[in-house]
Amino acid sequence: MTEKPHPAVADIRRAVRDLFDEAQPEGRVAVAVSGGADSLALAAAATYVSHKAGLTVTGLIVDHRLQTGSADTAARAAEQLATLGLDDVRVLPVTVDGKGGLEAAARRARYAALRAAADGAWVLLGHTRDDQAETVLLGLGRGSGPRSIAGMRPLDRPWARPLLTIPRTATQAACQALGITPWQDPHNADPRFTRVRLRHEVLPLLEDVLQGGVTAALARTAAQLRDDLAALDDLAADAHARASTDDELEVAELTPLPPAVRRRVLRTWLTRVGTPELTDAHLRATDALLSDWHGQRGIALPGGLVARRAHGRLTCTRLNS
Amino acid sequence: MTEKPHPAVADIRRAVRDLFDEAQPEGRVAVAVSGGADSLALAAAATYVSHKAGLTVTGLIVDHRLQTGSADTAARAAEQLATLGLDDVRVLPVTVDGKGGLEAAARRARYAALRAAADGAWVLLGHTRDDQAETVLLGLGRGSGPRSIAGMRPLDRPWARPLLTIPRTATQAACQALGITPWQDPHNADPRFTRVRLRHEVLPLLEDVLQGGVTAALARTAAQLRDDLAALDDLAADAHARASTDDELEVAELTPLPPAVRRRVLRTWLTRVGTPELTDAHLRATDALLSDWHGQRGIALPGGLVARRAHGRLTCTRLNS
Repeated sequence: MTEKPHPAVADIRRAVRDLFDEAQPEGRVAVAVSGGADSLALAAAATYVSHKAGLTVTGLIVDHRLQTGSADTAARAAEQLATLGLDDVRVLPVTVDGKGGLEAAARRARYAALRAAADGAWVLLGHTRDDQAETVLLGLGRGSGPRSIAGMRPLDRPWARPLLTIPRTATQAACQALGITPWQDPHNADPRFTRVRLRHEVLPLLEDVLQGGVTAALARTAAQLRDDLAALDDLAADAHARASTDDELEVAELTPLPPAVRRRVLRTWLTRVGTPELTDAHLRATDALLSDWHGQRGIALPGGLVARRAHGRLTCTRLNS
Repeated sequence: MTEKPHPAVADIRRAVRDLFDEAQPEGRVAVAVSGGADSLALAAAATYVSHKAGLTVTGLIVDHRLQTGSADTAARAAEQLATLGLDDVRVLPVTVDGKGGLEAAARRARYAALRAAADGAWVLLGHTRDDQAETVLLGLGRGSGPRSIAGMRPLDRPWARPLLTIPRTATQAACQALGITPWQDPHNADPRFTRVRLRHEVLPLLEDVLQGGVTAALARTAAQLRDDLAALDDLAADAHARASTDDELEVAELTPLPPAVRRRVLRTWLTRVGTPELTDAHLRATDALLSDWHGQRGIALPGGLVARRAHGRLTCTRLNS
């Protein structure tokens, strides 16, 4: 009982403890479990840490009912959780409607079921540093700015991701050390999934070309990016509060701001007054009313709205109002 | 003469004009030319736009003297520039000392020669959107935060990069339309260079896996990132100016700042008082004197320095002083 744990087990427990320090869970936590190495290693560590802290742990297993035998897989994961000492284990069967692609629909159904079952408690998710790196690469392809490459957040109520700094190899090593045999999801080898190709083709090639450390580098950059974005969002929220009255913005409050903060204020404002589908080009055009003011006319925006500057204020109204 | 230019030629001219609007060059500009498609297409466009604007154009060709026949390549590029109507063409032979790797040493020698020859004028560089995407991927591998993936700046005196939004295919199309035969640098196909492998292996695979548009997406994200970083850097510079007196920082000025701005202020301060090689971990430890103050002891930093908090101020002194 006093035997020293395997280093991977110790690392994962420490990651869970660090997250608990920040999240301060009360009473109980939930752990989402697929039956794979990441979530089983997390469930084991979460149980250990929670019990030390006087918390109870509920294991939540979503059965997507997309593969034959999915109920058996779920039942097997439930048995494994029982042997790991969780206080409560629940299987959540869901119906995936397929809208917007199978991957997206399955994710939607899964998160909805987990959120409902957790009933206000934190839900620990087993996303690793490798998942984070894949998420950053997926975002690079979207190209919708820094936010798209900032990756997943460690805490995003009710979701908590303690393993974002832990490599996938560590969860596999931990399972082996604990005598747990994880389920191998056949989806994880199916090249029809973009994420699978990023994992098995793109990241290994990048590691080779850039001489290693890419996964860690991506996760590290994403973490710093999240801090930067949070700072800019906070500054923009403060500036928006100072500048806005009655759906209008005070020009004098906005002009001294750095452009990146100003465009965030404009985005918040235009979204609140009801502009749909804002692009970066719309924000830049509206911003020219501040940064390059020469008495120009209104800026046409989606949804039949027009942004105008008059009497030291910005207004946004319907074209025909 | 009044014939409509090829679309690629028109796009490149427009990119040069847009950059001139911002940079406001006076009297003359220089163009760095390797003899490849990117720089020849740029030189042609720069000459057209400059002459319309009453500016003269100097072509600068660096001869790295690393390949046999490099002088011939330079002479051939000089002839091509003469036919393009540049006002002045100069070949700059340099000596590459090889320190820190051949690529880095060649770049250092090239930029030093260009800067000296330009003598205060803007130097236009032919980096395209594809080069920008490769630069972002190189930065991803470094993982030293958002700055490492923000790519190259369009304006960074004396350097000006008008083609950062122009795909490489456009410079090739422009050369063909203008009857220019670009030089094919054998280095551009040599897989010993990281950049070549990113171009020929990683980017095509990413384009395939992420279903296209990756190069444009990387360049777009980098551009937004540069704006975000500029905003945070400006805010941090203002905060540093407010908070600092006599190499010390006023705690009360720092605590209300968002962490990402505060850590930037600390970085500026610690660098100025002489701390070498700061890491993110050092900054976070020092920041705990502000964000998590409980009367703790000083923070040991590289170079035998210690950061301490006392009497509402942060100080940084030598360990034995």
